[in-house]
Amino acid sequence: MAVNLNPPDAASLRPVPGLELGFAEAGIRKRGGTDLMLMRLEPGSRVAGVFTQNGFAAAPVQVCREHLAGAGSIRALIVNAGNANCGTGAQGLDAARRTCAAVAKALGLAATEVLPFSTGVILEHLPVGQIESALPHAVAALNADHWGAAAQAIMTTDTVPKGASRTVRIEGAPVTVTGIAKGVGMLQPNMATMLAYIATDAPVAQPVLQRMVREVADVSFNRVTVDGDTSTNDSFVLIATGKASMDEIAAQSSAAYAALKTAVTEVAQTLAQAIARDGEGATKFITIDVAGAADEAEAVRVAKAIAHSPLVKTAFFASDPNLGRLIMAIGNAGVAALDTSKVDLWLGDVKVIENGGRAATYREEDGSRVMKPAEIAMRVELGRGRAATTVWTCDFSYDYVKINAEYRT
Amino acid sequence: MAVNLNPPDAASLRPVPGLELGFAEAGIRKRGGTDLMLMRLEPGSRVAGVFTQNGFAAAPVQVCREHLAGAGSIRALIVNAGNANCGTGAQGLDAARRTCAAVAKALGLAATEVLPFSTGVILEHLPVGQIESALPHAVAALNADHWGAAAQAIMTTDTVPKGASRTVRIEGAPVTVTGIAKGVGMLQPNMATMLAYIATDAPVAQPVLQRMVREVADVSFNRVTVDGDTSTNDSFVLIATGKASMDEIAAQSSAAYAALKTAVTEVAQTLAQAIARDGEGATKFITIDVAGAADEAEAVRVAKAIAHSPLVKTAFFASDPNLGRLIMAIGNAGVAALDTSKVDLWLGDVKVIENGGRAATYREEDGSRVMKPAEIAMRVELGRGRAATTVWTCDFSYDYVKINAEYRT
Repeated sequence: MAVNLNPPDAASLRPVPGLELGFAEAGIRKRGGTDLMLMRLEPGSRVAGVFTQNGFAAAPVQVCREHLAGAGSIRALIVNAGNANCGTGAQGLDAARRTCAAVAKALGLAATEVLPFSTGVILEHLPVGQIESALPHAVAALNADHWGAAAQAIMTTDTVPKGASRTVRIEGAPVTVTGIAKGVGMLQPNMATMLAYIATDAPVAQPVLQRMVREVADVSFNRVTVDGDTSTNDSFVLIATGKASMDEIAAQSSAAYAALKTAVTEVAQTLAQAIARDGEGATKFITIDVAGAADEAEAVRVAKAIAHSPLVKTAFFASDPNLGRLIMAIGNAGVAALDTSKVDLWLGDVKVIENGGRAATYREEDGSRVMKPAEIAMRVELGRGRAATTVWTCDFSYDYVKINAEYRT
Repeated sequence: MAVNLNPPDAASLRPVPGLELGFAEAGIRKRGGTDLMLMRLEPGSRVAGVFTQNGFAAAPVQVCREHLAGAGSIRALIVNAGNANCGTGAQGLDAARRTCAAVAKALGLAATEVLPFSTGVILEHLPVGQIESALPHAVAALNADHWGAAAQAIMTTDTVPKGASRTVRIEGAPVTVTGIAKGVGMLQPNMATMLAYIATDAPVAQPVLQRMVREVADVSFNRVTVDGDTSTNDSFVLIATGKASMDEIAAQSSAAYAALKTAVTEVAQTLAQAIARDGEGATKFITIDVAGAADEAEAVRVAKAIAHSPLVKTAFFASDPNLGRLIMAIGNAGVAALDTSKVDLWLGDVKVIENGGRAATYREEDGSRVMKPAEIAMRVELGRGRAATTVWTCDFSYDYVKINAEYRT
């Protein structure tokens, strides 16, 4: 059961001029339903992406990197769910290229203008024939209003489709930002992948778009964790179709860049939080703020040390204000010369750790009260500097073990 | 239920000349039984230790470091179970020092000749009065034959006491090495600590002993993991009483050093493996060999990436040969420029990954067969160099969540 997460209202996912979405049933995902998603971009669109750092990067990730590094434009994205096309060697690369070629043929493009994405079982060969057969249906379904259906088609073990939209006015022009994502663990029951696609009709120069996708990833998808395992297929793609009536955003120092980045960040954070809310077996959604760090990297290390600790996560599941585990996790973050006497920690509005020890005002019943709700906010003050960050995660329940021990999709 | 782990036969834990052990019931550990252990060393003994790297190092760890750094000898060790004396600030340091003073008074020593150790609940103040009251009973019980009772007295949520002995002949003299340890997670249900004490009657020069304790820790206690959480109180102490009839081991290049180190390593590895076998909720004991690494640090990173992955650990619990999770974990180890086409992996005697993909000869039924037993060996070949390592761990079961979610001792 996802924590306070509902499917996006179809009408709330606003179309992005210059972009259409199609979907089809290719029969690759074993539990059935739509499992193929096609995105067509009008000429002049710009595309930038960030991809998994896993050493076993999947074949489609490798092809995406190649096509994005080339001189040509990107005009289509193709996504299949049910098979990750990872650990498949030269045959896997060939399968990803054949998928691009099929899309290119159907839409009258060059194969290098297509980005391929796969999510699902690792170490099995991609049935390209099934994609080729289903492709005409996806092409026939292409429509600017199909964001909701697209969010559905890329799901694997997600329990809720994930999407969000913002409208922002930049230089007087209304600009739309809409995105969808999938993922319920950094890696799911033998299924890989966090995939996210955000599009805007704002015109953005290519190097500026590439800069924005990294900056946004760093405060959204790179700040969410379910189990600490990074999948082999993680991809986040930012698309700018350029259809909005405004000048191209050509510099990251501009007010327009800041305004667009804010809207894209809001959509990305909503999607990232949705991934933690739908985390495998999640019963709690946890926000971890770390402040007073020497630098941002240190703040992230502390927040992730807390978010990844199985002992902290099981304590959240039990609604147990187990303070010892929290200081243990902070102490394990590898912060050089940590002065523990400067560390304070709040659970919700309750100060539980003060100067590295139990807060004088702390009462167990206050701790129990703030650990009960399905949404819990924690704040750590390290007393070392002015850097801060926020990380989102979920708890660790019986169902996490059940889902990951019992199922292989 | 521990995996293939029985309490050591009392007669098998051979006494170490120059060292006596006592125990008592101080009433600190809530489930009762003996929870205080005292070790007395004859004059001339040498002591070296390695301690937790956690930033919230407990008060007794800080006092141990002080006393070991001082010029004086070490003549006694005092260990309490049930309270970690961690996150307790200046009052905690004072409590650790008062404990040393009480032992010093009872045995006619200086307080700086005593090393204090605590394991148990974090963030609660140590009841020193209870230790002072129980101490005379521990002194009265001092006996060279009490290794088994000592192993029992330092347990927290351990289900089995852990001890091992070796006898080795060095320069014609029989030398004994005996050790005990406790710990069932890097950190337990709000209880902290891996504690290990190994003693030998071999005479060893202080700097050589310090070198040996680090070298042995690196291939034993630093190679075992239950949940990846390092406790605030971890301590491993190596004692050399010097009573054996041989020349002092004064150089680490000597044959005597090598012979003694082999025996100490065997005892330490047996104790380290016992910790994984008694891991919280463990149903499987897993040995991970990584070979073909560029250097040892890289081999350790790969082995621990596998050992720490919740997705890999739940697959072992399910006896599921989930190969995708194994390559995902290897890819996450942060190995620079990993050539996945050189990676091979065996589960038991079955080659499952070959050149980074599913082995041509692999059959699912072979994978299922080797995943069934309670003891599983895995071997990874990275194809990058000649460095190798071995890490021991356990699986991740419903009972891990149950133990950590439901209990606070």
